[in-house]
Amino acid sequence: MPKLVEYAEAGPEVRAVFDAIKAARGVPDVNNFWKALAVDPASLKRTWESLNQVMAPGTLDPVVKEMLYLAVSMAAGCAYCTASHGAAARAKGMSDAMYGELIAIVGMAAETNRLAEALRVPVDTGFD
Amino acid sequence: MPKLVEYAEAGPEVRAVFDAIKAARGVPDVNNFWKALAVDPASLKRTWESLNQVMAPGTLDPVVKEMLYLAVSMAAGCAYCTASHGAAARAKGMSDAMYGELIAIVGMAAETNRLAEALRVPVDTGFD
Amino acid sequence: MPKLVEYAEAGPEVRAVFDAIKAARGVPDVNNFWKALAVDPASLKRTWESLNQVMAPGTLDPVVKEMLYLAVSMAAGCAYCTASHGAAARAKGMSDAMYGELIAIVGMAAETNRLAEALRVPVDTGFD
Amino acid sequence: MPKLVEYAEAGPEVRAVFDAIKAARGVPDVNNFWKALAVDPASLKRTWESLNQVMAPGTLDPVVKEMLYLAVSMAAGCAYCTASHGAAARAKGMSDAMYGELIAIVGMAAETNRLAEALRVPVDTGFD
Amino acid sequence: MPKLVEYAEAGPEVRAVFDAIKAARGVPDVNNFWKALAVDPASLKRTWESLNQVMAPGTLDPVVKEMLYLAVSMAAGCAYCTASHGAAARAKGMSDAMYGELIAIVGMAAETNRLAEALRVPVDTGFD
Amino acid sequence: MPKLVEYAEAGPEVRAVFDAIKAARGVPDVNNFWKALAVDPASLKRTWESLNQVMAPGTLDPVVKEMLYLAVSMAAGCAYCTASHGAAARAKGMSDAMYGELIAIVGMAAETNRLAEALRVPVDTGFD
Repeated sequence: MPKLVEYAEAGPEVRAVFDAIKAARGVPDVNNFWKALAVDPASLKRTWESLNQVMAPGTLDPVVKEMLYLAVSMAAGCAYCTASHGAAARAKGMSDAMYGELIAIVGMAAETNRLAEALRVPVDTGFD
Repeated sequence: MPKLVEYAEAGPEVRAVFDAIKAARGVPDVNNFWKALAVDPASLKRTWESLNQVMAPGTLDPVVKEMLYLAVSMAAGCAYCTASHGAAARAKGMSDAMYGELIAIVGMAAETNRLAEALRVPVDTGFD
Repeated sequence: MPKLVEYAEAGPEVRAVFDAIKAARGVPDVNNFWKALAVDPASLKRTWESLNQVMAPGTLDPVVKEMLYLAVSMAAGCAYCTASHGAAARAKGMSDAMYGELIAIVGMAAETNRLAEALRVPVDTGFD
Repeated sequence: MPKLVEYAEAGPEVRAVFDAIKAARGVPDVNNFWKALAVDPASLKRTWESLNQVMAPGTLDPVVKEMLYLAVSMAAGCAYCTASHGAAARAKGMSDAMYGELIAIVGMAAETNRLAEALRVPVDTGFD
Repeated sequence: MPKLVEYAEAGPEVRAVFDAIKAARGVPDVNNFWKALAVDPASLKRTWESLNQVMAPGTLDPVVKEMLYLAVSMAAGCAYCTASHGAAARAKGMSDAMYGELIAIVGMAAETNRLAEALRVPVDTGFD
Repeated sequence: MPKLVEYAEAGPEVRAVFDAIKAARGVPDVNNFWKALAVDPASLKRTWESLNQVMAPGTLDPVVKEMLYLAVSMAAGCAYCTASHGAAARAKGMSDAMYGELIAIVGMAAETNRLAEALRVPVDTGFD
């Protein structure tokens, strides 16, 4: 079993980030990702701050941002990330139909990605 | 140089797909991807038809669909696909600000994807 | 430009492997892969010996072995390997039709690989 | 647990594909991959049809096609696909010796793929 | 050609990061990575700050840190990153012999990584 | 469950390698990786010999070599390899602080790897 740092055994640096996550999300405990990352308190803090900045309100709709995160996680084959960002996307409004369309794109893009690489297709002038 | 099949040398099966692509997109010639894929006419036809179905109007906005395709291509490290779907996303309305937010998510997701894998984080019960 | 070690500047360890490659393949010079790998003579020798063992005559037909090598290289997105093992597969008898079928499988497998990961499909009992 | 759509709860579109799979394979139930993919009926139908076309009789021997599919799945690190296409390759005639040679190629190709990328080897003129 | 933001055309946010990079590294201009990333000033700033934190003096020797960064970049197949972190590792003291050993590990790990995945090896109890 | 070859059922070729591993490591039994790889005795022998050569004493410190192996395994998303080389690195002297710095580099490199690919950054002249 990988090491998961629980609040009770955490130092003040880790507790401060855990508290910030719990407050921001209104949850009683942080997810396993944060507990695992707490083995390196500096990475924990930096990752939480970076994530907040990247997912902050902007031009894109929050559910679109979360779906982009989910699509990248699926493409990277990260099961944990697919599960956690799938749940987050649902919470932000991803419907079954939206999820179905996302799945279709992830699969199709994987196929054309490999075909373009397998055929070593030169970039068309117009794309640049 | 990989083999690119030009219209002039193509057989009727390939020409039919090339004609369909040119008509659907209102372009004088197809992109290199299709010329390269034409070495296998059956794959050319199937891929064009699948792509049309996957990217057809649905619940998601067309520019969102294209951005999801682009994000997967970036995550997969496919330079050709990144260039072509980047151009397509621009054509469908992706602004500089939207592109900036997409780039930030692709990078950040890559980091947390690897961290979750590196730490072998078990999936939280609540995510399933 | 990455460093390529030419025969004239190579030490005796590297020259011995280069000579073995040239003799085995009946070519006047080794490919860039071997020249690049010669920056680490131990890796050069080990890789040449391992490759010979892995691709030695066995149960599978030589062209099938080369096509498996090619398919893995395409899946891994290695352009050099796709080019070199594509040429090798052609030399060992891969026809245009066989190449077309291989391309189709590489693309299709990439799609179902991602879909299976994206959907986190549990392994069926019968598969084990 | 990811969502698996069972026949009893499936709509007519999904049932039609499930019936086609069961008939084609002579099995009482479809594998988990199809049950999971059924969350998007359009993807389910398209993927089944594409797979049939890609794996249809052609120039390559059916067991070779299945081994190519398996090799790509191993290279992509998809555990489900490795398990399912491993079982399929066995069913189509892959012996222990053939499996051993395939494993050796998948491992060796992974090493030379990374070495070629790590050394950024330029493609030899003769390969194109 | 991808967009590269030059100092002359950059806004104050981007210029501030470019100035910080030039000062920290004692170079007259920043590398292409930073010019490309400047299309999203927030990502530029965050990435520069994160990189500084991650590569700051710690327990590991600076050349070891840079070699770890290089090894990950080689494993990920990122040609730009392999070139830039290869140059950085050289500058921090990586000798030809050290580079040779690193190359050997990157190649060998790629092989055993794929073999472990291909064989779906269960994790030994003792490793956790 | 993937096939694991136990000593009692192994042939003389496999037993010879298992004996060599047990003697070299002073362990009563070999890890699952070797038991799984024993389905192809030639690969088992070659991989054990290659691993010994690659990880043999050289210029780099043994713990640095093991950390490089671990970093590549994390980047490749191989859970088994991450667990086994993580344990090996600990045994060779990797402290919690060293592990924390390694984790930070693996995550950060993954992000900049993807950003460099996503932005298709051209290699700076000075890097070659």
